[in-house]
Amino acid sequence: MSLVVQKYGGSSVADAEGIKRVAKRIVEAKKNGNQVVVVVSAMGDTTDELIDLAAQVSPMPAGREFDMLLTAGERISMALLAMAIKNLGHAAQSFTGSQAGVITDSVHTKARIIDVTPGRIRTSVDEGNIAIVAGFQGVSQDKKDITTLGRGGSDTTAVALAAALEADVCEIYTDVDGVFTADPRVVKKARKIDWISFEDMLELASSGSKVLLHRCVEYARRYNIPIHVRSSFSGLPGTWVSNEPHAQGAQKVEQAIISGVAHDTSEAKVTVVGVPDKPGEAAKIFRTIADGQINIDMIVQNVSAASTGLTDISFTLPKTDGRKVIDALEKIKPTVGFESLRYDDQIAKISLVGAGMKTNPGVTAAFFEALSDAGVNIELISTSEIRISVVTRADDVGEAVRAVHTAFGLDSETDEAVVYGGTGR
Amino acid sequence: MSLVVQKYGGSSVADAEGIKRVAKRIVEAKKNGNQVVVVVSAMGDTTDELIDLAAQVSPMPAGREFDMLLTAGERISMALLAMAIKNLGHAAQSFTGSQAGVITDSVHTKARIIDVTPGRIRTSVDEGNIAIVAGFQGVSQDKKDITTLGRGGSDTTAVALAAALEADVCEIYTDVDGVFTADPRVVKKARKIDWISFEDMLELASSGSKVLLHRCVEYARRYNIPIHVRSSFSGLPGTWVSNEPHAQGAQKVEQAIISGVAHDTSEAKVTVVGVPDKPGEAAKIFRTIADGQINIDMIVQNVSAASTGLTDISFTLPKTDGRKVIDALEKIKPTVGFESLRYDDQIAKISLVGAGMKTNPGVTAAFFEALSDAGVNIELISTSEIRISVVTRADDVGEAVRAVHTAFGLDSETDEAVVYGGTGR
Repeated sequence: MSLVVQKYGGSSVADAEGIKRVAKRIVEAKKNGNQVVVVVSAMGDTTDELIDLAAQVSPMPAGREFDMLLTAGERISMALLAMAIKNLGHAAQSFTGSQAGVITDSVHTKARIIDVTPGRIRTSVDEGNIAIVAGFQGVSQDKKDITTLGRGGSDTTAVALAAALEADVCEIYTDVDGVFTADPRVVKKARKIDWISFEDMLELASSGSKVLLHRCVEYARRYNIPIHVRSSFSGLPGTWVSNEPHAQGAQKVEQAIISGVAHDTSEAKVTVVGVPDKPGEAAKIFRTIADGQINIDMIVQNVSAASTGLTDISFTLPKTDGRKVIDALEKIKPTVGFESLRYDDQIAKISLVGAGMKTNPGVTAAFFEALSDAGVNIELISTSEIRISVVTRADDVGEAVRAVHTAFGLDSETDEAVVYGGTGR
Repeated sequence: MSLVVQKYGGSSVADAEGIKRVAKRIVEAKKNGNQVVVVVSAMGDTTDELIDLAAQVSPMPAGREFDMLLTAGERISMALLAMAIKNLGHAAQSFTGSQAGVITDSVHTKARIIDVTPGRIRTSVDEGNIAIVAGFQGVSQDKKDITTLGRGGSDTTAVALAAALEADVCEIYTDVDGVFTADPRVVKKARKIDWISFEDMLELASSGSKVLLHRCVEYARRYNIPIHVRSSFSGLPGTWVSNEPHAQGAQKVEQAIISGVAHDTSEAKVTVVGVPDKPGEAAKIFRTIADGQINIDMIVQNVSAASTGLTDISFTLPKTDGRKVIDALEKIKPTVGFESLRYDDQIAKISLVGAGMKTNPGVTAAFFEALSDAGVNIELISTSEIRISVVTRADDVGEAVRAVHTAFGLDSETDEAVVYGGTGR
């Protein structure tokens, strides 16, 4: 008998109707002869409502209590889902993260899973139950306090449980039909990907694709758990993410040269102008940034002008950290002796991802030509073995993504992409 | 240092403002040099909203999942309360019933507390925190499932924790100023009782007084925990319920002859007419009722008429069980051979309670005279050592209660009773 872990996001269980629809889908999986473990997020807007309540009683809620508050959300959705399944005549039991054995560190609001001891879940499914587990939450190893896992936490719960239970597949149900070759809201002719490797999915996730978060894919890769991303609305087969294209249920597919085009408009660009081109100056700058707990993404340093001995260093980072980094750098201006800072949050990052580019030397040239033909100017370039990213004006992002998508033959014959709802956590 | 357990009901924490007001009151107790443990119910209508959601997904929600669902309510209120207290600059930690060591049996939706192991709470308060505990919930001893305690569960949680922590007092905050000599909504001149014995309070509670439930008073009596019932709105001293009138903080008060007049309009009267007056017939009737898990209250059997050898048996029971008992009795009609059944849900029970009546022989006569003078007819009578109860027409209840209240000198000089809000759980 196969063991399947399914995860449903908040938009799939936004109301009683949604919960009943999801219950039917779960029961189908059970009827097909599988053992079924379900991870569920909080209903639709519940989390936002709880955050709003917290803001009303305290401007700076403590992490421990904030986690206690937020975890009420999954408690509601999972209990209702178990009731709905029982109402269809199948045995079901709900479990909190703590009961399910999701052990985390003590970093409230963004805890990391350090162990999963799913004894109660194993017993429950062996007794014939469908086990419903609260996503997004765990219990801290040292203090036994309730923790939450932060963004993408429910997906991570699902993959971690699938790994601990040695499940055959982890199905992530969402409001789109799978992973697409580009964001369907930007590229109408984006195509659903049938299979994608963990590596390519990791690059897409870190380049702005929002279907799966990097953290969850990384976890799945480490434990080799195939992920099947699919829609809870349409029920169509979605995208398999795994090591090998012949994963369970997936058609045999060739590795594509290019998996997809991702874009990201959440970053800003900082340029440090006129940095003395001598050893240690760049180090001072990046040490300052690191000490401020700011994550930066692309870094580019120009060749210094021979006449002045000065160079410019540019990097990108989340817009939300913009203020912080400017303040920090202004403070070290006297010791580093750079000329000025430029801050620009009207940028977009466009990334082409595909393991095939390793063995296809023309990819970079074709990418730049496509952008040039579309009249899009490139401001920064950064590459990895299986990814090329460029920074352009934010206004150009739609045009640029569509041009690249077409140039690499990714367009589908039809406008097949559908977006069904909002996004859960 | 004293240890105080405080309990706040749902109407006291109905919204963010209520939570902030309660937080201030808690901090005051802490500032006065006490260790403070707080038990809190779900916010205002939360429980009703959750019950409504459950009804939308399943007509008969399973108890285990229903309890999982409902306990989300206290999770929200306790986390918010802890945040609000921290916002006032005091350390606070919230704990679920399970974390607080409230161990119950496995009877979902009306579990009984079988043990309290408050190690985490003790540690938390010893470290200087105000500990906030979810009322109404626990964890089952055998299966480690989340349970709820049913009606009055939060009061019981508070008393049970007070007992396990050997607290000096258990303060029950509610939406009235204390226990009154009669329901203030019926008797404007009802007087707040400064002190009442456990015994009298138990009789009042089982006679229709809703301020404290029987179960909670019984627990407090068993462990000799003084209860102080008071308003979370006015902050005035309320009613002390304890063994001795010189309990902490209470003025030295004389034991009153009569503690109060309670009434109850939630019961119906069933009369089994024409029961053969021979051994075993009544037993058959009450065995049938007991097998149906129906709790009955007063039972009265008339002397049988010598001419017929038949007698009538009347009893009262909750209206909600009316249908069930009639169906059960109709089934045994052929074997018992009674003539007919009468069902009457237009009745009221009026009870006079006071340990003093043991040594004051005129009380019964004065009670009946007061009712007679008010033109109220008595349909059934039942007595205990410290209580006299009668059944009257429901329409007469206000008149009857006021007449008896006045006759026993319980009226205050002024209309002092105030009702501030709704009722929590």
